[in-house]
Amino acid sequence: MKVIADVSIVPIGVGVSLSRYVAACERVFKEAELDTRLHAYGTNVQGEWDAVFDAFKRCHEVVHEMGAPRVSTVIKVGTRTDRDQTMGDKVGSVEAKLK
Amino acid sequence: MKVIADVSIVPIGVGVSLSRYVAACERVFKEAELDTRLHAYGTNVQGEWDAVFDAFKRCHEVVHEMGAPRVSTVIKVGTRTDRDQTMGDKVGSVEAKLK
Amino acid sequence: MKVIADVSIVPIGVGVSLSRYVAACERVFKEAELDTRLHAYGTNVQGEWDAVFDAFKRCHEVVHEMGAPRVSTVIKVGTRTDRDQTMGDKVGSVEAKLK
Amino acid sequence: MKVIADVSIVPIGVGVSLSRYVAACERVFKEAELDTRLHAYGTNVQGEWDAVFDAFKRCHEVVHEMGAPRVSTVIKVGTRTDRDQTMGDKVGSVEAKLK
Repeated sequence: MKVIADVSIVPIGVGVSLSRYVAACERVFKEAELDTRLHAYGTNVQGEWDAVFDAFKRCHEVVHEMGAPRVSTVIKVGTRTDRDQTMGDKVGSVEAKLK
Repeated sequence: MKVIADVSIVPIGVGVSLSRYVAACERVFKEAELDTRLHAYGTNVQGEWDAVFDAFKRCHEVVHEMGAPRVSTVIKVGTRTDRDQTMGDKVGSVEAKLK
Repeated sequence: MKVIADVSIVPIGVGVSLSRYVAACERVFKEAELDTRLHAYGTNVQGEWDAVFDAFKRCHEVVHEMGAPRVSTVIKVGTRTDRDQTMGDKVGSVEAKLK
Repeated sequence: MKVIADVSIVPIGVGVSLSRYVAACERVFKEAELDTRLHAYGTNVQGEWDAVFDAFKRCHEVVHEMGAPRVSTVIKVGTRTDRDQTMGDKVGSVEAKLK
């Protein structure tokens, strides 16, 4: 089952600068060879359900290992059985209607 | 790694009445023997990371099997290494401060 | 336009104990005379769009006034034009299908 | 109060193709002269709290006017009092740590 997901991780109890934790998760996604796209409030991630969610779990583990005692994450995940769709397709489909 | 999570599943392409799909997910959680608490915009779920996320995946599979061509889900997931905390602890902690 | 919403506020940069900030928001909702239901990963809120979102804004202001330099909030909001529905209706509709 | 937000709107009861509704919201944001960035699971929006949330409300109204009987939206909203930060700053801060 393929998914297009979006993940936004918030380490709690480590101050206000969170970018190094987000960067650590980006590295987890890269090691997992997932297609990703970073944006200003999270990261789009595309792949097989298990690969994507294993990476999200690893992300929590890594952020805890970096010293965060608490982590709160928001995940959006979409699946569809009617047709294949990539992250690029989704954006392109909206942009085509804006022309 | 224990989690307190919250999940809100939206089947797309099956009309406006979604409660039977939500009920199907509740049954998935029950079969998985997860602690849950249904509310008006999702369900709190508590357990081990893998058990909780396996149930979320099963939930997508079941909702597709019921005929939904597309499913979009929002998951919030919290983990902490500083101490154990249950769903009841979280609610109780806020309520104690409201007295 | 009536809404059923769910809000989960995370103050950042004030340590790991967040319940007093959540309690402050509950007080904001009470002062605004909104129907609410606290759960383990947020609060269900029901009311008119403007009243609900004014309360969410006030909530950010209050949490900043309490000393949080950064706040990240997740809001789910549902509106429907086909019929009136309360938070209790939504939960009841799922529970009826679980019997 | 300036915000960086992210919004993902799901019209319910209008089939599986949602891009024209998302495009209608993009037009609402453009008319409101908000800074936005479309991605594969939502849109980043930057501006003053009231301008941003007025646009989200208008977005619900427009999607209902287009025929959707039900709309479920996920909003993430961040505010900070310690310093100014743009959407570009947030992405740049993570990318700098990935070099």
